[in-house]
Amino acid sequence: MNVKVVLVFLALSLITIFALAYVLVSSQGGSSQPPRCPSVSHSAQHWTHPGQSQLFADLSPEELTAVMSFLTQQLGPGLVDAAQARPSDNCVFSVELQLPPKAAALAHLDRGSPPPAREALAIVFFGRQPQPNVSELVVGPLPHPSYMRDVTVERHRGPLPYHRRPVLLREYLDIDQMIFDRELPQAAGLLHHCCFYNYNGSTLAPLQASPHGLRSGDRTTWIALHHNISGVGFFLHPVGLELLLDHRALDPAHWAVQQVFYLGHYYADLGQLEWEFKAGQLEVVRVPLPLPNGASSLRSRVSPGPLPPLQFSPQGSQYSVQGNLVMSSLWTFTFGHGVFSGMRIFDIRFKGERVAYEVSVQECVSIYGADSPKTMMTRYLDSSFGLGSHSRGLVRGVDCPYQSTMVDIHILAGKGTVQLLPGAVCVFEEAQGLPLRRHYNHIQSHFYGGLASSALVVRSVSTVGNYDYIWDFVFYPNGALEGRVHATGFVNTAFLSGGEESLLFGNRVGERVLGTVHTHAFHFKLDLDVAGLKNWVVAEDVVFKPVAAPWSPEHQLQRPQLTRQVLGREDLTAFSLGSPLPRYLYLAGNQTNAWGHQRGYRIQIQSPLGIHMPLESDMEKALSWGR
Amino acid sequence: MNVKVVLVFLALSLITIFALAYVLVSSQGGSSQPPRCPSVSHSAQHWTHPGQSQLFADLSPEELTAVMSFLTQQLGPGLVDAAQARPSDNCVFSVELQLPPKAAALAHLDRGSPPPAREALAIVFFGRQPQPNVSELVVGPLPHPSYMRDVTVERHRGPLPYHRRPVLLREYLDIDQMIFDRELPQAAGLLHHCCFYNYNGSTLAPLQASPHGLRSGDRTTWIALHHNISGVGFFLHPVGLELLLDHRALDPAHWAVQQVFYLGHYYADLGQLEWEFKAGQLEVVRVPLPLPNGASSLRSRVSPGPLPPLQFSPQGSQYSVQGNLVMSSLWTFTFGHGVFSGMRIFDIRFKGERVAYEVSVQECVSIYGADSPKTMMTRYLDSSFGLGSHSRGLVRGVDCPYQSTMVDIHILAGKGTVQLLPGAVCVFEEAQGLPLRRHYNHIQSHFYGGLASSALVVRSVSTVGNYDYIWDFVFYPNGALEGRVHATGFVNTAFLSGGEESLLFGNRVGERVLGTVHTHAFHFKLDLDVAGLKNWVVAEDVVFKPVAAPWSPEHQLQRPQLTRQVLGREDLTAFSLGSPLPRYLYLAGNQTNAWGHQRGYRIQIQSPLGIHMPLESDMEKALSWGR
Repeated sequence: MNVKVVLVFLALSLITIFALAYVLVSSQGGSSQPPRCPSVSHSAQHWTHPGQSQLFADLSPEELTAVMSFLTQQLGPGLVDAAQARPSDNCVFSVELQLPPKAAALAHLDRGSPPPAREALAIVFFGRQPQPNVSELVVGPLPHPSYMRDVTVERHRGPLPYHRRPVLLREYLDIDQMIFDRELPQAAGLLHHCCFYNYNGSTLAPLQASPHGLRSGDRTTWIALHHNISGVGFFLHPVGLELLLDHRALDPAHWAVQQVFYLGHYYADLGQLEWEFKAGQLEVVRVPLPLPNGASSLRSRVSPGPLPPLQFSPQGSQYSVQGNLVMSSLWTFTFGHGVFSGMRIFDIRFKGERVAYEVSVQECVSIYGADSPKTMMTRYLDSSFGLGSHSRGLVRGVDCPYQSTMVDIHILAGKGTVQLLPGAVCVFEEAQGLPLRRHYNHIQSHFYGGLASSALVVRSVSTVGNYDYIWDFVFYPNGALEGRVHATGFVNTAFLSGGEESLLFGNRVGERVLGTVHTHAFHFKLDLDVAGLKNWVVAEDVVFKPVAAPWSPEHQLQRPQLTRQVLGREDLTAFSLGSPLPRYLYLAGNQTNAWGHQRGYRIQIQSPLGIHMPLESDMEKALSWGR
Repeated sequence: MNVKVVLVFLALSLITIFALAYVLVSSQGGSSQPPRCPSVSHSAQHWTHPGQSQLFADLSPEELTAVMSFLTQQLGPGLVDAAQARPSDNCVFSVELQLPPKAAALAHLDRGSPPPAREALAIVFFGRQPQPNVSELVVGPLPHPSYMRDVTVERHRGPLPYHRRPVLLREYLDIDQMIFDRELPQAAGLLHHCCFYNYNGSTLAPLQASPHGLRSGDRTTWIALHHNISGVGFFLHPVGLELLLDHRALDPAHWAVQQVFYLGHYYADLGQLEWEFKAGQLEVVRVPLPLPNGASSLRSRVSPGPLPPLQFSPQGSQYSVQGNLVMSSLWTFTFGHGVFSGMRIFDIRFKGERVAYEVSVQECVSIYGADSPKTMMTRYLDSSFGLGSHSRGLVRGVDCPYQSTMVDIHILAGKGTVQLLPGAVCVFEEAQGLPLRRHYNHIQSHFYGGLASSALVVRSVSTVGNYDYIWDFVFYPNGALEGRVHATGFVNTAFLSGGEESLLFGNRVGERVLGTVHTHAFHFKLDLDVAGLKNWVVAEDVVFKPVAAPWSPEHQLQRPQLTRQVLGREDLTAFSLGSPLPRYLYLAGNQTNAWGHQRGYRIQIQSPLGIHMPLESDMEKALSWGR
């Protein structure tokens, strides 16, 4: 072979090697980077906020601790941690933000005045003194407190009697101990027969009614016994036995069971009940233990199926959360949690203009009916348990969409140290699945217009006993602001003693279990400031009035027209969703719009949740105001 | 150079080439396939369906065409296409599915009997005969019709008078022609001054009231004139002029304007109005032309911002749509569209068991009030225009989520040929953003349980004039079935003549424009078959009754209890959302559940949409039953 030919082959081979190596290197470079999408400039410009969100921010752990230290120093060495305090002790029940006066807050927000002093409100139980009482103390200024001011008399027109205090953990434990150590053993025979009870333990657990009595000053509580197995909703497993316990005395040794209720009949005490059982005079119903995977368990009874649809934001989230300040391209607001009153938002601005100073949950009431004394006594005022302090961490993908921003809360209530509630608030953008508006025009000209809708949502959930209330404030791109509450969890029940009459009070939800009839009422505070501070509330409704047709007066038309009634000219307007209301409340501002009319926000009151009939499901779309 | 050395180099080069080529080919093979996720077995098993969805399927284009051919053959050569028909012609107004009798359908579905004959219902206008009338003809069997049966007298207890027929396209055009060619030129001076009118054309367009008169037999219609510019909501631009036109005569030459209304005053005709204008006795308001990008345009006034959150199903959609049959792991149903009554679903089964035979929209009413005669006359019964025939294609990402399954509809109404409405129904899985249920237990034991929720939705939208009604049927994983309607589009308006009294009838939505007060009512048919055919409807409510506390009789409690009233024992239950109703309707089945109780579906009636005050937004959360 000619050397020249071989050299030509060699040269060609080297060229091929370089070519292949180049292709390989460049294609590997390409494959190491995924194809890029053209970058999208986020045109959404957030409204800048003066940044005074600190005014309404919940107290930080450091602030809560500083207040506790100050109070410990001021109130002396007799102070006991609320988690251990007996009724005869002094303790700090709760510490939370003392909201600033509105005028001072607005002077700061709108006119650059110095911020009002940041203060705390502490509720203190004074059990260890000749005249036990409950006191409310304002402590300030934060972060380094130097004063405290007793505001009890100023706010309540007198001292707060000690019997009005909520039940603390130790009192609950003492009640449990009394029931299990002193009381139930007296009816051991009956309880063994009906309820799998023995001296060494049982599944029985108490569930208390509220309020604690029929007269001011009472502290007597109906307590129902339920089978309790972890993971199972013990609310659904009454055994038919209820006790009326007087626990007013500060010393538990003086507490006493006043009456006993079993399967529709009243007895003086458990001893009498046991005597009748042993005498064979008692009708007894054996109540089987709940199964860990039974109907009352929250465990899934089917293998998890495919994932439900998820929401995702292809261009990233369109809002930001800085501390308690939330900003989007249209809305800014700050949020907080009252220990008792629950979720609240402040300084709510749409396109930079304030439309509300405060919108807040205030109260959540449920009133029950049944034949059982514990149930017919039950009127839960959930703020007394704490709508804020009963918030807990939310679960991504279940309680909130996966992409939510989770925010921690710190609470000081019922014990003397700060409690972290991790991720107890979530903020997210909600795909509505509906157009915000759309129209397909086919009269006179053809065109279509529509806008996809999404809303900004801030959510927390209060679990107060059996119910989980999902509180949402919803901010729509058209300026509408909505409050929503959904109720889920377990229904409360009573033992179904039998007979058609029991069903006057609910529906059967188990073998001998009555899901008890009840009503809900929700109370909100709505301090809208539309175009200024001086707003008034106008109730609007429609009536049909007869009118002779002007072009044919022998014929009469029924014509709808508006009625408007000014309900109040208060700056602060609180209303309850649960009472009869006009169909629309209209909050008018004190400025006029381009057409010479009062500017206003219309508040639509939908049906209150009203009666909850626990027939089938435990989730209910509740009510909304807004739009 | 030694040939051997060169040959060795050549050999090495060739080996290198092969090696490089191998690496390149194998790495390209790798990069051409994206990394694979482990495959997920879709454990969701769809309930099999007998497949008789054909029973309730809308007529196919072939079936519609076959019925038209058969009718053309049977009714003779005088038949005119409805799109061209004059009042004095014969024409086929509409053809749609004649729903099978329930008993025969169930015999087929449940007991394997042969399917009932598939039939069509045709509505025919007979204008070209001595006694003009409207006839309803049942045509069958499909797909090859051989008979037709006049059912008019059987269904309406007598012949249908011709004046009751809806207005056809040609009649609308003839009305327009009369207004623009014969009437408006009589007031050319006024119209030029007020409304930019000249003989060669104008922006004016007519908007008709309904019904057409005050007495049975009338065909006199109030017609308001509005500025119309394409892309702009002409509903928002009244000019203040309205005409009362008598168009009862079959020959348009005999039609006549009976009265004229302008800015609050009535006139005999346009000639009189023009005379008063020329005599300087008329107050005239110049109404500017709407701007193509003004407030009444649907064009976006801001550059499109970032995308709102989207829904996606990471494991694919969990339902399937085959024709009009929808199946998921929990639900099966078939859907259809009545030309007039709108969306409907049939044979609705949860976990394989039928819970409803039919759930359907039936009627959609709006009643308006204002000072203008056109507005105070307006009582739209939208089924008379056609809730199904006014459905149109839906827009992905706006009207329905992007991932929806779009389904075409075919309609034959108002013209003699089949009209395709592409993608006028969408089916999708809706992320709820809320747990179906959740509970965070902290009494007696600590545990959490929750279920993410999604629902299956079938949707269509009827645009009847100004309003777009979004009809949803929603199927929840807990067995709840919900009907929803949202209203969007434009508000209807009247010219705002001024004075506070005008505001009795609405709110100002433009310089001289009154958004007019109105009410909506929606009528559904709900034929639930819960555990059998014999259902009855029970209205439930709660009353508080005083009771002496049994353990302390000197104290009285107000105790809630249920009231139950059997409203009807009909198999078919229709009710209207708009009339006063008890808070809960409870539909009981004829079988008992495991606890010896009637099985039932509770129907929750939320507030009807009621009054719509067009103050701010044009979208309203309406009402829902279900859950």
